[in-house]
Amino acid sequence: MLESGARLGPVEVAYETYGTLNDEGTNAIYVCHALTGDAHAAGHHGDPDRRGWWDNVIGPGRPVDTDRFFVVCSNLLGGCQGTTGPGSENPATGTPYGLTFPLFTVRDLVTVHRALLGHLGVGRLAGAIGGSLGGMQVLQWVIDHPDEIAAALVICSSSRLSAQNIAFSAVAREAIMRDPDFQGGDYYGTDRSPDTGLSIARMMAHITYLSEESMREKFGRRLQHGEAPRFDFSVDFQVESYLQHQGESFLKRFDANTYLYMTRVMDYFDAFADATGVGGRLEGTSTRFLVVSFDSDWRFDTEHSREIVRQLQSWRVPVTFREIESPYGHDSFLLEIPEYHRTVEAFLDRTADDLGL
Amino acid sequence: MLESGARLGPVEVAYETYGTLNDEGTNAIYVCHALTGDAHAAGHHGDPDRRGWWDNVIGPGRPVDTDRFFVVCSNLLGGCQGTTGPGSENPATGTPYGLTFPLFTVRDLVTVHRALLGHLGVGRLAGAIGGSLGGMQVLQWVIDHPDEIAAALVICSSSRLSAQNIAFSAVAREAIMRDPDFQGGDYYGTDRSPDTGLSIARMMAHITYLSEESMREKFGRRLQHGEAPRFDFSVDFQVESYLQHQGESFLKRFDANTYLYMTRVMDYFDAFADATGVGGRLEGTSTRFLVVSFDSDWRFDTEHSREIVRQLQSWRVPVTFREIESPYGHDSFLLEIPEYHRTVEAFLDRTADDLGL
Repeated sequence: MLESGARLGPVEVAYETYGTLNDEGTNAIYVCHALTGDAHAAGHHGDPDRRGWWDNVIGPGRPVDTDRFFVVCSNLLGGCQGTTGPGSENPATGTPYGLTFPLFTVRDLVTVHRALLGHLGVGRLAGAIGGSLGGMQVLQWVIDHPDEIAAALVICSSSRLSAQNIAFSAVAREAIMRDPDFQGGDYYGTDRSPDTGLSIARMMAHITYLSEESMREKFGRRLQHGEAPRFDFSVDFQVESYLQHQGESFLKRFDANTYLYMTRVMDYFDAFADATGVGGRLEGTSTRFLVVSFDSDWRFDTEHSREIVRQLQSWRVPVTFREIESPYGHDSFLLEIPEYHRTVEAFLDRTADDLGL
Repeated sequence: MLESGARLGPVEVAYETYGTLNDEGTNAIYVCHALTGDAHAAGHHGDPDRRGWWDNVIGPGRPVDTDRFFVVCSNLLGGCQGTTGPGSENPATGTPYGLTFPLFTVRDLVTVHRALLGHLGVGRLAGAIGGSLGGMQVLQWVIDHPDEIAAALVICSSSRLSAQNIAFSAVAREAIMRDPDFQGGDYYGTDRSPDTGLSIARMMAHITYLSEESMREKFGRRLQHGEAPRFDFSVDFQVESYLQHQGESFLKRFDANTYLYMTRVMDYFDAFADATGVGGRLEGTSTRFLVVSFDSDWRFDTEHSREIVRQLQSWRVPVTFREIESPYGHDSFLLEIPEYHRTVEAFLDRTADDLGL
């Protein structure tokens, strides 16, 4: 049963775990992935080229230390990497859901995480951590279940999107839905799919993931071939080549309908809309928050994090807030930035000590 | 003859003039339009709903005062509002140029402006003014003809695009060129045109024209219909409706090929690439510059303007620089912002006085 009242089932969940659950079941950390992530957060399944998307954060001796913690990461509901989503078969019809897949919420994402934890025999979590959409799940989780998580780590996230954030999402969805190969979302099994729209969406998103500064350093106005501009419409500047590559390679691993659902979930997310209700639940919570932003992130800038901090503090929820210096924009949460990693590590170390792990 | 060596002709130019040229031909101001502008800068041709795009700047008693100055504005070369462009008939083939239209440069745009002035009997200009791509033309004009303009007004412009600027242009062009109705640019006379691509490009561009702050104030997270979100993929937030309207209405007045050419002209523009050569020409110029930026403009932020100022000052070119406070982002140059208008007016008043107009 989803927040909207729609029923959906059965739901399959793809997940990975790292480290070992202790006998008391008290050392688990849930990793919530972002818009285009998946369950493969760490390790490499024997292929060093296929490292998980947060392999620099999760592992033995890393900030999320698998020598101490048992780490779970699942592909989100509505995803396209193993968990039931719009590309899955609707048992009622025998065909893929497409856009008949019910629109879900961040709360629904958390509901599925909790069902998985029940299956794994985990009760209270030592921690939950996520960047961007991942941080939204962590925040919602604590709001709905204020005593279920000891340490909540909300990285470069937002309690609600700004008009500009929604605008970028809206244009991305337009690009996908107006692609003639979209076919109203029922492109599965046809030999066409909205590749153009999805790669346009991805290219645009990538601009918002990098800071202007990091783009300048990474590409500047450098040309792809030699010194002399070609003066034509082909890929001439290096930044064009980079974006095109990002757009193309994304098609191999992502489904356009999932992109629509995940961006829309974020648009509608508004963690503190019912401030009185949320405050009433959170006062006296046993959860401690770490909120992290990056100073060059302009997708979810520090103001988004500050807003979360202000609200939580107004209810006397314990919050540590850190704005980390990093030139890499929103993408910073995926990168090995020493101060960021130290901050996460210290917060989780303290949590482990408090919990006697 | 274009800068690339390509030949193009004949070239028709659509233009408008406001005010009266004095007997000495010394009171002319050239208005250079931006990416999607046209020759209709001021007045309304009897239809008050069809006011020119800079009607608040140009007119009797306005900052560009038509009681004092004779004002000329032309549609740019490559345009789609009357001047020869990719939609015009190639006399050699009898069909529209499409992508066989030669790629031109900002220098070529100026060449056409100067030819028009010759036709109008104007010699030295009292002033040239433009915002964004318009400012690039003003800058290039002075670089190539350092004694032809008394006052050069360069508003929220750039001497060269950043990687991020190019990236946004590149994605816009991808959206257009990968639209199946683009047909390699030869869509004229078919019953299809790349409307989807062009409106996606326009929607995305609009995000970059507004500041985050102005989007928040203008739209916030307000919904289009009532209080309750619809939780679907239709237009629900007001900002979505705004963007969709901008995308749609743009189709009525703009040609996709012109969009490709104009954005590419900007990508390749690099006013000071040959700094030694440019410096040699500009030292001792009789032109005085006014460079204006807006503090919330993130398409061409103040750093772009500062870079122009720094370069000009290094050659001892007289420059007045003003960063104007305005919450409206890049769009500010089109709006009636008192301090901005006063600044332009004062600069042109002084010019008129100096010239004895």
